Amino acid sequence: MTAGIPLPSWRPGMTRDTLLGFLDAARSVPKADRVAYFDNDGTLWCERPTYVQFEFFLDALRRRAADDPPVGGRPEFAAVLSGDPEQVGALGLQRVALALAGLFEGFTPEEFTAEVRAFMATATHAALGRPMSTTVYRPMLELIAELRRLDFTVGIVTGGGTEFVRAVSDDLYGVPAELVVGTLIAYDFARDPGGRPGLRRTGHILGAANEGPAKVANIQTQLGRRPILAAGNSGGDREMLEWATAADRPSLALLVDHDDAGREYSYAGKAQTLSETEPVTEIASRLGWCVVSMADDWETVFPR
Amino acid sequence: MTAGIPLPSWRPGMTRDTLLGFLDAARSVPKADRVAYFDNDGTLWCERPTYVQFEFFLDALRRRAADDPPVGGRPEFAAVLSGDPEQVGALGLQRVALALAGLFEGFTPEEFTAEVRAFMATATHAALGRPMSTTVYRPMLELIAELRRLDFTVGIVTGGGTEFVRAVSDDLYGVPAELVVGTLIAYDFARDPGGRPGLRRTGHILGAANEGPAKVANIQTQLGRRPILAAGNSGGDREMLEWATAADRPSLALLVDHDDAGREYSYAGKAQTLSETEPVTEIASRLGWCVVSMADDWETVFPR
Repeated sequence: MTAGIPLPSWRPGMTRDTLLGFLDAARSVPKADRVAYFDNDGTLWCERPTYVQFEFFLDALRRRAADDPPVGGRPEFAAVLSGDPEQVGALGLQRVALALAGLFEGFTPEEFTAEVRAFMATATHAALGRPMSTTVYRPMLELIAELRRLDFTVGIVTGGGTEFVRAVSDDLYGVPAELVVGTLIAYDFARDPGGRPGLRRTGHILGAANEGPAKVANIQTQLGRRPILAAGNSGGDREMLEWATAADRPSLALLVDHDDAGREYSYAGKAQTLSETEPVTEIASRLGWCVVSMADDWETVFPR
Repeated sequence: MTAGIPLPSWRPGMTRDTLLGFLDAARSVPKADRVAYFDNDGTLWCERPTYVQFEFFLDALRRRAADDPPVGGRPEFAAVLSGDPEQVGALGLQRVALALAGLFEGFTPEEFTAEVRAFMATATHAALGRPMSTTVYRPMLELIAELRRLDFTVGIVTGGGTEFVRAVSDDLYGVPAELVVGTLIAYDFARDPGGRPGLRRTGHILGAANEGPAKVANIQTQLGRRPILAAGNSGGDREMLEWATAADRPSLALLVDHDDAGREYSYAGKAQTLSETEPVTEIASRLGWCVVSMADDWETVFPR
């Protein structure tokens, strides 16, 4: 980062002024309340054409099916391997996601983490032509760095799998495992034949998917502090952003608008609330959130 | 702390040598794996004659019953107000604990935290003749400081209420909310008449009480990293201590033995596993844990 110029990848303008104004106002907030939470997919890194986590599971499924062809015949897996979103949609995304998560049933947490890291070490984003680990948004990394300079606690609140994100969050964002809250797979506690205790992944989700109101409740139960900055890009982030700004103190709700077909993607399809059809960008302007236009506000999108 | 002498409240001897040996060995462990979790009641602060959290609920119940006498007639509350442990035991501790937790049903997290802090600001430990906030163990504070000097992440894994401990953990131990895992009360997400979202405490527990194997599973789901140091004082800590030391790397399981009737308390009653009757100190010696004798190993018990 260039010395003396904060947020160099953010173009001068209203959005950058809003960020700098918030950072300045946050100096008046007690340090224990300087808490910022970011959604991950589409907010901190690229989520198109598919979630990185989906690519990871797809890769694991392909390897599994190569070793053991009948696996590929299971309806959920056949739908995924077909590459046809309509086949997946016909079965229901949740059913397919659970089947994919089940590929790692019985794995220890350490084994699963090693699988994720091995995938990330070599995976590339074909359309963007860069390593998957560099599809993070440079302007957001700069914002996180500025927040840390002000002693903010920075966490990730994602609809994705908690363990998947924890496996990469320290490397990508400097966020430790305990500051990642996502959708959780339950573990079984068991002893090996020698009596040593350990944990194994099950095939079921603990609680509900971490989207919408669940993000708010899970922040309270798992992290325990309400944020004064929340950033997201979809309807699943709506309640978290509203909650961050509903208390009587300096706060900021940040919504990333994917309007940059040239450098990333342009889409609003996911930008709807889970229960309503009002585009989340319209909700944002109604509620006074700061909308980040990727095309207009970001001088650079990805790290060099 | 005296410069140059680490752990000054720990008397020279085998226990202190074990601690210093572990701290030295931890230098070879990657920083991301330098993780230490402490039980709270009886490990970091005094849990006798009753848990501090129980004193807090008792105080709240007395005030509530003074305002609204019929409240005191509810069987669970009558048993508590009687001061007779047998009456509480006859109803079952869990039923009584849930009734007490229900005193704060409908409170926001911020309101509950304010109640805990108001209590802690004035509560005293009658038998020890000191403020409740100074019934923490000075040797353990010194150990935490040494761990932090080595860039350890230090957390609390307690059977007590998560929100109660979070309200005091930063002040007492410098542990932020997200590094406290305990028994959780569920929250309801709701909007006020103006449409602003918020959370309210319910009267039921989320998941199971955080004891025994649940401590291991909850560390994995809520914190995401396995500790290399775990400290406890009772059977409810057994699995956590075994798990910390079951991996192939430097690790330490620490068990506080309350054998000091002169300066604190002498008891082994709670020092049994939940499902077995073997005293936990015997389990400790069988499994090679480091047993801390409060009477022999601690030069000073409480802060001055």
